[in-house]
Amino acid sequence: MPAPRRTRAIALLFALGTTAAAAQGQPPKANLKRPLVVASQGSFFVGGDTKPLSGPGAGGDVTVNQMYVQYQAPPDAGRFVPVVMVHGCCLSSKTWETTPDGRMGWDEYFVRLGRAVYLADQVSRGRSGFDASVINAVKAGSQPPSQLPNVLFASRQVAWTVFRFGPKYGTAFPDGQFPVEAAEELYKQMIPDLNALLPTPNPTWTNMAALAVRLKGAILMGHSESGFFPERAALVDPDGIRGMISIEQPCPADLTDSDIAALAKIPTLMVFGDHLGDVTGGPANWQASFESCQAYVKRVVAAGGDAEMMHLPALGIRGNSHMLMQDRNNLQVADLIARWIDAHVEQKTKR
Amino acid sequence: MPAPRRTRAIALLFALGTTAAAAQGQPPKANLKRPLVVASQGSFFVGGDTKPLSGPGAGGDVTVNQMYVQYQAPPDAGRFVPVVMVHGCCLSSKTWETTPDGRMGWDEYFVRLGRAVYLADQVSRGRSGFDASVINAVKAGSQPPSQLPNVLFASRQVAWTVFRFGPKYGTAFPDGQFPVEAAEELYKQMIPDLNALLPTPNPTWTNMAALAVRLKGAILMGHSESGFFPERAALVDPDGIRGMISIEQPCPADLTDSDIAALAKIPTLMVFGDHLGDVTGGPANWQASFESCQAYVKRVVAAGGDAEMMHLPALGIRGNSHMLMQDRNNLQVADLIARWIDAHVEQKTKR
Repeated sequence: MPAPRRTRAIALLFALGTTAAAAQGQPPKANLKRPLVVASQGSFFVGGDTKPLSGPGAGGDVTVNQMYVQYQAPPDAGRFVPVVMVHGCCLSSKTWETTPDGRMGWDEYFVRLGRAVYLADQVSRGRSGFDASVINAVKAGSQPPSQLPNVLFASRQVAWTVFRFGPKYGTAFPDGQFPVEAAEELYKQMIPDLNALLPTPNPTWTNMAALAVRLKGAILMGHSESGFFPERAALVDPDGIRGMISIEQPCPADLTDSDIAALAKIPTLMVFGDHLGDVTGGPANWQASFESCQAYVKRVVAAGGDAEMMHLPALGIRGNSHMLMQDRNNLQVADLIARWIDAHVEQKTKR
Repeated sequence: MPAPRRTRAIALLFALGTTAAAAQGQPPKANLKRPLVVASQGSFFVGGDTKPLSGPGAGGDVTVNQMYVQYQAPPDAGRFVPVVMVHGCCLSSKTWETTPDGRMGWDEYFVRLGRAVYLADQVSRGRSGFDASVINAVKAGSQPPSQLPNVLFASRQVAWTVFRFGPKYGTAFPDGQFPVEAAEELYKQMIPDLNALLPTPNPTWTNMAALAVRLKGAILMGHSESGFFPERAALVDPDGIRGMISIEQPCPADLTDSDIAALAKIPTLMVFGDHLGDVTGGPANWQASFESCQAYVKRVVAAGGDAEMMHLPALGIRGNSHMLMQDRNNLQVADLIARWIDAHVEQKTKR
């Protein structure tokens, strides 16, 4: 029988505080030295629609909007709820793999913690499908140029400040955790974002919900552009979703009470790094995003939900960028998230 | 000291013949049952150019044409030359992973054979970068629609015959090896091909050559659209390339004698499946491709090279489709290729 909510919350805050303080000098929870033992790995697709091709010379049907998923499971992974990681704007699942300076990413680290990990490329990005026929149609003159998608790019100058490596391009925060000496390798991760091609609602939401059902329970994790996708997926179909981890995104204020009641049934963790208000100008306002998510968490808790804001500086962990899964202390942050999963998801879930 | 070429060739033919006949009822060379032990894995990028963004609201530099590479290495992989696999048209590195019907792909199988495996997404596909700014420029009216790329799609109807699942859509060859009951899962692998956005020469060629150098020696494998990319890469820079495996593609007839002399220095294997002349109409003529590669092999051998055509039906192996890395007998075909590597690359290469 679970402890009363308030007691659990206090115990957790205490545990996190202790962990965070100690974590500065502690080795990661998982053993990084020994070879990785993989019980199973592979890839598959979720979702997808059949669409007839049109246009000159075209004939037949293509599949569009399917989501590519890559996975790796350690022995006995069935003991734990798997985690699904979804990347942000102008990025792919590479986000979670080897860091720009060559350290282990969260993909392998969570496997070493004993948990199956699923990386999903957002629909229209990476190895996932999308409908690009409008490009040929505009080229052929059968549709006007206004029908083309607005492709998103993030230049290195924009990335530097939006990802909070420092207050202006080329200047790093003195306590910054991002390995700025390897920033060139991050820029290579950035690829054109074709989400403007997608229908409404975004098929990635539907596919994430379907993946959780297929896995008979999963924790969904999103970042930045996809930060609120776990919640969006839960509003499509909550059945498979055992936990939601939202990393650094704006939270909507316009959800209905009924939406909030549905979301409050699933444990929720929001994670934000440091220097949220220390970069001015630019397309992102992380301080405002943080505050919108504080308000969201408050609303979910008021509805009886188990929702928590993990603001790393409040735990004594300084200097984390927007790309905290690639920061120098990325495994310490992973340990904090893993402990939250243990306390909030595993103890509630029967496998 | 290597045996005289003719003796070696005869010995190999004999070995292949024996292997092929026996392979029909033999278990795969690698142990599939035990958990996979991974000494190292991860991902990185090769190549990439910096390009200033232009257009309304754009500012700064983006990286384009970088190639995403994912790798996995078993313990003691340093004993063997690694293999780099590059996918074909309208596909991604998913080609080499879990087959449409859920069996092990060549990516894991070659790791289980003791070899490090590198999967590269072609530039402009999957997690690799590309320059999509022309789409925004046409949308904004600063470039005409004629500047848009011609995006390639393969419908399921086209894929069925081009990939030689059967003589016409929905009808399978009685001895066909492709798991047609899972064809829907193959169609999901097919994503828009934006290669028309690429500059000349194709950056994937340059990046494959650079990857081989970075790995201090590698075997390059290509398929279909990328089937001749190992050779194209070798014409850019042969230094790191220890072997070239070209699977089902047309071979060019217009190479100079100097090109052929350069290519003849690297062991070459060409692989073709069955039913090459049994599908008529459609955009591909595999019988003609096969004959062009027979002529190519002859020309390389005449120039003193070690080049070989592995036509599977000639070895008694029937029914292989264009997607032979996903066919039911995919691991038997992999074993044949692995034995070719052992005999033609490993014995010539000092690590």
